[in-house]
Amino acid sequence: MAAWSERLAGVRGVLLDISGVLYDSGAGGGTPIAGSVEAVARLKRSQLKVQFCTNESQKSRGELVAVLRRLGFDISEGEVTAPAPATCQILKERGLRPYLLIHDGVRSEFDHVDMSNPNCVVIADAGEGFSYQNMNKAFQLLMDLENPVLISLGKGRYYKETSGLMLDVGPYMKALEYACGVEAEVVGKPSPEFFNSALQAMGVEAHQAIMIGDDIVGDVGGAQRCGLRALQVRTGKFST
Amino acid sequence: MAAWSERLAGVRGVLLDISGVLYDSGAGGGTPIAGSVEAVARLKRSQLKVQFCTNESQKSRGELVAVLRRLGFDISEGEVTAPAPATCQILKERGLRPYLLIHDGVRSEFDHVDMSNPNCVVIADAGEGFSYQNMNKAFQLLMDLENPVLISLGKGRYYKETSGLMLDVGPYMKALEYACGVEAEVVGKPSPEFFNSALQAMGVEAHQAIMIGDDIVGDVGGAQRCGLRALQVRTGKFST
Repeated sequence: MAAWSERLAGVRGVLLDISGVLYDSGAGGGTPIAGSVEAVARLKRSQLKVQFCTNESQKSRGELVAVLRRLGFDISEGEVTAPAPATCQILKERGLRPYLLIHDGVRSEFDHVDMSNPNCVVIADAGEGFSYQNMNKAFQLLMDLENPVLISLGKGRYYKETSGLMLDVGPYMKALEYACGVEAEVVGKPSPEFFNSALQAMGVEAHQAIMIGDDIVGDVGGAQRCGLRALQVRTGKFST
Repeated sequence: MAAWSERLAGVRGVLLDISGVLYDSGAGGGTPIAGSVEAVARLKRSQLKVQFCTNESQKSRGELVAVLRRLGFDISEGEVTAPAPATCQILKERGLRPYLLIHDGVRSEFDHVDMSNPNCVVIADAGEGFSYQNMNKAFQLLMDLENPVLISLGKGRYYKETSGLMLDVGPYMKALEYACGVEAEVVGKPSPEFFNSALQAMGVEAHQAIMIGDDIVGDVGGAQRCGLRALQVRTGKFST
């Protein structure tokens, strides 16, 4: 294996995943992962650009940043690339009016979106919101559309909370895909558009950036396919 | 297309699907499909053997037969091949102790099954029972097992109730498969073992039998792969 200095040669920007890398979410706001508050602080004191690239879809960026700041992280909303705002952009560009199967915590990101007479379904990590009734409503709506559009904020299998592993949005995306015979459009990692928007936010080219995450598919695989380097941490879901 | 008499030559037994063929389930017990009560009566007056071959997994056979008898059908428990009793047999043979993610209506079929310290997950059409909490419990249990076993009673995408289309067990099976990286064992149509047990119950060979159902995959495809003839009705989910 090449030395670290060689593997990091030419790196100008760092994309940091949040859940499982900076902290494990959970009751009372979750807990920071050992060493991560100081690691972020050191990165920010360095010459490197830093952007937080997350598939968090239960919380708005504002809520997420507030939680992380309470845990001691130096982070602001503008430094966070998240799937909800990226989805709002897509809805606007394509004239889509969503039925939202999402967590209340992220609903404020969709405040200015027209939701009358829905012509698509947007799902995110809805947690307890993934009731049979809500899933069935999303299913019936998709079955009624001539051109069903299903947008999924990420496709993670699960994530780690302080209390244990929790089902993420991916399994529910698969359920609706199978039920309706459609393929979801994934907004978030590992989609190339999503990595590119995070790179743009730091003004760094793909070959000058490294992604640090705990998910071998969403973080590492996705970044590598975009020409970034990637590093998998041994915290979060890695350690399960 | 060959004449009916030719296509039915040598048929000695008829397998009848129930939901979408005999009746549409729903509030107040559901409603019979026009002509089906008389069709069953005529079949039973004929020389043909009849067996009901269903993936119904919300109700016990006793409950299902009671509903159908109230609607006017001539049917008894012994004439019904259903996935719950077939699953109990498998659990017993393999020493499996299930966590049951099922509807209360079918729970009595599992009355004599050891459920202590579960070493597998059994899912069926749980309806409202498919809460995030219950799905997450099934997921966590599978992730904790060294050799995760997931048994699914059918893999239907959806079925038709009088009030509209409803998600069946299949989408939830797919969700757990994706979350845990496992492949479910399907008990029920289209599994060959299941068709064979229905054929055995009427004492008829595959080439002497015809399956009548509304599901192109579970009923028609499954039966044909077993060497049966098959006929798709234009009621139930076909008509959606």
